[in-house]
Amino acid sequence: MPNADALRPEDAAEQLTAVGRRFHARGWVLGTSGNFSVVTSRDPLRLSITASSVDKGALEPSNIIDIDDTCGVHGGYGNPSAETLLHLEIVRRRGAGAVLHTHSVWGTLLSDSHGLDGGLTIEGYEMLKGLDGVRTHEHREWVPIVANDQDMTRLARVVGITLDRDRAAHAILLQRHGLYTWGATLADAVRHIEILEFLFETMGRTATYRSRGGQYGTAQDS
Amino acid sequence: MPNADALRPEDAAEQLTAVGRRFHARGWVLGTSGNFSVVTSRDPLRLSITASSVDKGALEPSNIIDIDDTCGVHGGYGNPSAETLLHLEIVRRRGAGAVLHTHSVWGTLLSDSHGLDGGLTIEGYEMLKGLDGVRTHEHREWVPIVANDQDMTRLARVVGITLDRDRAAHAILLQRHGLYTWGATLADAVRHIEILEFLFETMGRTATYRSRGGQYGTAQDS
Amino acid sequence: MPNADALRPEDAAEQLTAVGRRFHARGWVLGTSGNFSVVTSRDPLRLSITASSVDKGALEPSNIIDIDDTCGVHGGYGNPSAETLLHLEIVRRRGAGAVLHTHSVWGTLLSDSHGLDGGLTIEGYEMLKGLDGVRTHEHREWVPIVANDQDMTRLARVVGITLDRDRAAHAILLQRHGLYTWGATLADAVRHIEILEFLFETMGRTATYRSRGGQYGTAQDS
Amino acid sequence: MPNADALRPEDAAEQLTAVGRRFHARGWVLGTSGNFSVVTSRDPLRLSITASSVDKGALEPSNIIDIDDTCGVHGGYGNPSAETLLHLEIVRRRGAGAVLHTHSVWGTLLSDSHGLDGGLTIEGYEMLKGLDGVRTHEHREWVPIVANDQDMTRLARVVGITLDRDRAAHAILLQRHGLYTWGATLADAVRHIEILEFLFETMGRTATYRSRGGQYGTAQDS
Repeated sequence: MPNADALRPEDAAEQLTAVGRRFHARGWVLGTSGNFSVVTSRDPLRLSITASSVDKGALEPSNIIDIDDTCGVHGGYGNPSAETLLHLEIVRRRGAGAVLHTHSVWGTLLSDSHGLDGGLTIEGYEMLKGLDGVRTHEHREWVPIVANDQDMTRLARVVGITLDRDRAAHAILLQRHGLYTWGATLADAVRHIEILEFLFETMGRTATYRSRGGQYGTAQDS
Repeated sequence: MPNADALRPEDAAEQLTAVGRRFHARGWVLGTSGNFSVVTSRDPLRLSITASSVDKGALEPSNIIDIDDTCGVHGGYGNPSAETLLHLEIVRRRGAGAVLHTHSVWGTLLSDSHGLDGGLTIEGYEMLKGLDGVRTHEHREWVPIVANDQDMTRLARVVGITLDRDRAAHAILLQRHGLYTWGATLADAVRHIEILEFLFETMGRTATYRSRGGQYGTAQDS
Repeated sequence: MPNADALRPEDAAEQLTAVGRRFHARGWVLGTSGNFSVVTSRDPLRLSITASSVDKGALEPSNIIDIDDTCGVHGGYGNPSAETLLHLEIVRRRGAGAVLHTHSVWGTLLSDSHGLDGGLTIEGYEMLKGLDGVRTHEHREWVPIVANDQDMTRLARVVGITLDRDRAAHAILLQRHGLYTWGATLADAVRHIEILEFLFETMGRTATYRSRGGQYGTAQDS
Repeated sequence: MPNADALRPEDAAEQLTAVGRRFHARGWVLGTSGNFSVVTSRDPLRLSITASSVDKGALEPSNIIDIDDTCGVHGGYGNPSAETLLHLEIVRRRGAGAVLHTHSVWGTLLSDSHGLDGGLTIEGYEMLKGLDGVRTHEHREWVPIVANDQDMTRLARVVGITLDRDRAAHAILLQRHGLYTWGATLADAVRHIEILEFLFETMGRTATYRSRGGQYGTAQDS
């Protein structure tokens, strides 16, 4: 991942700030929800990550913390996000160069409505082709849903197990909490967020729409 | 609340203007709805509050009025918001440093649909952790709904009684009118608005979504 | 209406341009839909009105036409809006200083769903107080719905008859077409648009929400 | 189409960049979805088209590729859009000066729900008058829906056959993929996108709204 490795912390801070303002404008990181990270060095591992409890609509480069793989802080103001362990887990197990977490209305709704199923299947949409390595709309994407937990060590372990079990997954939903996705570069991760948030809204609206009686069918309806 | 006490009226005016434009962009204070205040002095109590009948999308610092606890005007143009008494009631009973009132579609819808219940319960959402003092998504938040009233003295009294009765509440809904929330600082109150508006939209869309037959369940469904 | 009478055509053009960009950002005047006018002189009557077929998201002062009460053009480029006769009818019968027409999704939906009723009743909402002369949320607003017609002379006559019949109305909906409202000043008309579009969306979402079975009631439900 | 023919590639790049940012702000081209082209020369045919896999929210003039009718690249960085063959097909068979493809939630939803019908009928809406050559809201617009396909040569052939069969159509939907429309100029094509996206949202919301039991009727209901 040369482009991720080449990144200087000050450039990472600028880029994450722009991402935060962009997602806040869409309503995907309201309150102080959401957190974002990008790898600036592989060996030793160094991560630039948003500080805890900051308003993403007013994000400043100084709100980006430079940390190592033990959560040691090497730069920036404030504490690293409470969910830093999840970012590190994803970076380690997926070799991701960037990890993004959004907290949208539709992601929250689907993580809730499909909670008992343990996940969500998305298939047949052209938009799926924007996910890394997907070549056709006939792709079947499984988005695992993990129960929410305030014990971050335990939650990180469950996320790790889920990443190892569902090796093809491009994302994870935390129930009634939100979306985690990643990419080789920050641009890839941003693309994954936009694609998955689009698909969550489309699926949510389609399910509501179908409630009118389902006289509309599609080739893929069983 | 040092950060609230330290605030100069001219800085308060700048900050409230930015909040107004931000919420107007989201469609939460259309028409001339909504009003915002921040405490600039505790003793004697001084409040900077939006003037009555101003367009929040074109809010200017001159639209912010500097008043005392008898509604006496000490600066700014126009009259203080017609709902100033509600702001003073909240400041007194909660020791709030800022009070914000939005008037969104989803807040209006839920304040209407849950009107007979006298309030609304929100629980199980990670977003609740953004509310002051809440540490887990398992928190159960009760948002009391008060009948709307044009007699501001009477409405302020009912709001006061409600604040004393529901001591854990972070907000109040006025039926078919909108949301009141507050915080130690303006930033805390802004965060509360974004969190509650997010949760109202999520609950409203979930209830509509479930109408498809409820074959989707969640761990917390009874 | 001194503030309307005092307006110079060049100032009117600037103000209408800002209104157009603001409403386009909300999605209320997509395509080249919508048209806006403001009275610059009462006697003789002179109106500044948007040109026909212009993109409201890229509106320029040169797109604003200065016309008289016979639709004679005195300034600006292009032709006055095809719906100029409706603006003149409203200015004459209501003494309006500004007339605004938006074309939103929710306005179109309600003008369709309530078409056979000949109109729409809105009551019990605090937001109604933003309508000129309304003092309480208990106000009952009747918004007449007029069948759409490509014969502008005939449509203007029907609109005129409707204005005379429903003297208390603050607005008219054209079926599957959109909203017309007005005010003593441009600011009043903008406020009326934002209030009515808010109420249309709230009513539309509430009706869809209720489809879940209506176990939610409100004090005002019959 | 003089205004299309007169266009210089550098001006085309500027204009397509502005269109991309405008549609991205609406959420119509999230991820790297959507692609846009404009004819800069008729004979020989030269087309300015967005590069493949670019973020439309950060589109730069350098992302616009200057190609000929054999997809030969004459300027710009990156590869022309994977869907270039569809653009060329539309330009040839409709003599279009610009072709735009968006990928919205409502377009995707309707292309899915009406997939088995082979298309979608839109009628009775004033907004239809913004489509080239349409003079009345009583117009009946048929939007054909073509099954999605990753074989672009085959898909282009099907699109071509559809364009020849449905000669009056102003647009085509690709199932679970999105909207293609065009115009004599880029401004005409932008207007068509805004109109059709508006109508898709209106029809989608109306169908959901009617699910409440249909006690609301309209003159055109059967």
